[in-house]
Amino acid sequence: MSFSATDHALMARALRLAERGAYTTRPNPMVGCVLARDGEVVGEGWHQRKGGPHAEVFALRAAGERARGATAYVTLEPCAHHGSTPPCADALIAAGVARVVAAMRDPFPQVDGAGFARLRAAGIVVEYGLLEAQARELNRGFLARIERGRPWLRVKLAMSLDGRTALANGESKWITGEAARADVQRWRARSGALLTGARTVLADDPQLTVRLPDTEVVPPLRVVLDPGLVSLGRSRVREGDAPTLYVHAPDACIPQDMAVAHVAAPVRGARLDLAAVLRLLAERGINEVQVEAGPTLAGAFLQAGLVDELLLYVAPVLLGAKARPLLDGLAIDTMAQRLRMSLLDSRQVGEDLRLLLRPQADPAAAAGTGQG
Amino acid sequence: MSFSATDHALMARALRLAERGAYTTRPNPMVGCVLARDGEVVGEGWHQRKGGPHAEVFALRAAGERARGATAYVTLEPCAHHGSTPPCADALIAAGVARVVAAMRDPFPQVDGAGFARLRAAGIVVEYGLLEAQARELNRGFLARIERGRPWLRVKLAMSLDGRTALANGESKWITGEAARADVQRWRARSGALLTGARTVLADDPQLTVRLPDTEVVPPLRVVLDPGLVSLGRSRVREGDAPTLYVHAPDACIPQDMAVAHVAAPVRGARLDLAAVLRLLAERGINEVQVEAGPTLAGAFLQAGLVDELLLYVAPVLLGAKARPLLDGLAIDTMAQRLRMSLLDSRQVGEDLRLLLRPQADPAAAAGTGQG
Repeated sequence: MSFSATDHALMARALRLAERGAYTTRPNPMVGCVLARDGEVVGEGWHQRKGGPHAEVFALRAAGERARGATAYVTLEPCAHHGSTPPCADALIAAGVARVVAAMRDPFPQVDGAGFARLRAAGIVVEYGLLEAQARELNRGFLARIERGRPWLRVKLAMSLDGRTALANGESKWITGEAARADVQRWRARSGALLTGARTVLADDPQLTVRLPDTEVVPPLRVVLDPGLVSLGRSRVREGDAPTLYVHAPDACIPQDMAVAHVAAPVRGARLDLAAVLRLLAERGINEVQVEAGPTLAGAFLQAGLVDELLLYVAPVLLGAKARPLLDGLAIDTMAQRLRMSLLDSRQVGEDLRLLLRPQADPAAAAGTGQG
Repeated sequence: MSFSATDHALMARALRLAERGAYTTRPNPMVGCVLARDGEVVGEGWHQRKGGPHAEVFALRAAGERARGATAYVTLEPCAHHGSTPPCADALIAAGVARVVAAMRDPFPQVDGAGFARLRAAGIVVEYGLLEAQARELNRGFLARIERGRPWLRVKLAMSLDGRTALANGESKWITGEAARADVQRWRARSGALLTGARTVLADDPQLTVRLPDTEVVPPLRVVLDPGLVSLGRSRVREGDAPTLYVHAPDACIPQDMAVAHVAAPVRGARLDLAAVLRLLAERGINEVQVEAGPTLAGAFLQAGLVDELLLYVAPVLLGAKARPLLDGLAIDTMAQRLRMSLLDSRQVGEDLRLLLRPQADPAAAAGTGQG
């Protein structure tokens, strides 16, 4: 299959539209749709909220009669099942669309090729695979949940130039600047869950909410890993609109008056089984998890090979060797055991530097991360 | 004084020419010269080597008769004294140049305004200050030596993402990649001296030479800080064309057969007085010093407030908290004591990241760095 320059441009437009749903479509994937005739856009739309119309429906509404004979560019295979809304494949057929170009097949079990089949059966030309890598990148959270039963895991950390997160006395306020802290809010907003540990809750009493003025955001679930439920005395993580979920050990003592959601997860050794915790969050429809925790929990996720990306803010300060390390508990004794990452993006955010890294897909790392 | 767009463009050209001498003019400053009539370049040149012709002379030779009535753009005030070569001011006057635009005055005591005065006395229009910041940046080493009697000090370090330079067992090979190691060679080439400590010599037996194929480089002086002359058993740092200088404590025992240059520096406490060492190198005509040492010596230069820039290569790997720290001996117990830097440049070099940082010019840092 070969796609024209116009096809590329219109799919790129559909991808940009899809991204507008980044803060609100969860647990659904982001989807964008552009309808065009002879390269001229006659309608477009994007999926905004679970339960609301899909991208195709918005685009068809905008196009009206002009949809007849048009090409539909969609970033994900149109659905073929009755979910919250009727199948988009049927709507495209009814509107008389002549050709459907999709960025990728939808691995969701109730779609998974059935949308394409339905369109083809109606005589519509169906092609897919255009800008697929970009479409997969956009919905990496949704795809991780559907394809491997585990959310996409991002670990956010902030450190000094010499890899320190706090002074020896624990002082860590204002390592990074205002611009970096505002940037974190946008990464929080696209996350289905913000995960932290009991130790961080006890030390910092964080609220873990999204503060983005004038922006519609479906509040991410706040997840506290607290095997023994020792951090309940700190309440900010339960305040506000966002839901909170405590994950504890099976033998934890649960207070009679515990009014907040909680769930038991299996333990491995002295700590919660992190892979099991992630499966549990996937079952709850969480696509992307952002870990905002201390060096021990961040290190444990890395050591377990469960980290998909590292969002690292580096402040241009030196704190010295007495200060606290970035990560704890990594079992690295030889260079062969070092955790190799790929630098996807680096940019200045205010006075700080922001790095986005992913584990390198070498044999050793791949065995650990289980991506695929 | 106001300069035209043509003035700016031609001075920028002169600065680029000047930079061609980066590896060879030491201890002289880099200087470029462009001669132009009505915005048209009629001759250009740059200073290549100490003892060789100055930039102005090359440009005048190239221009010949067309120098008459021309404007000379020079990145540094033309000299007025007989050094290795006759005064450039006289050459410009003799050639009939009508106007001289300089980026900056030359603080060198034997020039320092005398060049401008001589030109003006001959009826030449003299203006200066065009792209002065860029000209100062170019010759920051020369200016540091002349203006404060101390070379510009660059500390080069390579570390993992989590701020580690080696594993606990000392293993550090291949933290950064080939592209980063090649990049280091270019920074070495512009340095007047490469400085290391006895501990690094004992551990790594480095050669500390410049390896840049097909590039003319005046070999930097290799400086080993070795208070007790305990590293003489390691000989690679004395091999090859580059000179070597050992700096030791006044009471060091000097072997009868010591055939390599050495000099005593005062001690402060248990270590050499680093400020005194730098003054000593300035007296020897060293403009830029690049420190390639371990965490202790690098930390000592930082703690002493003697570091002008940090050249930091960051490899996208994690080594964990058992690995060796970037810097040792920094006395930082409160956030107010943290060393604040400014990020001047960040770029990917192969798979690694290269950061160029300078101490922030806040009151606390300024007191330490003594820049002026």
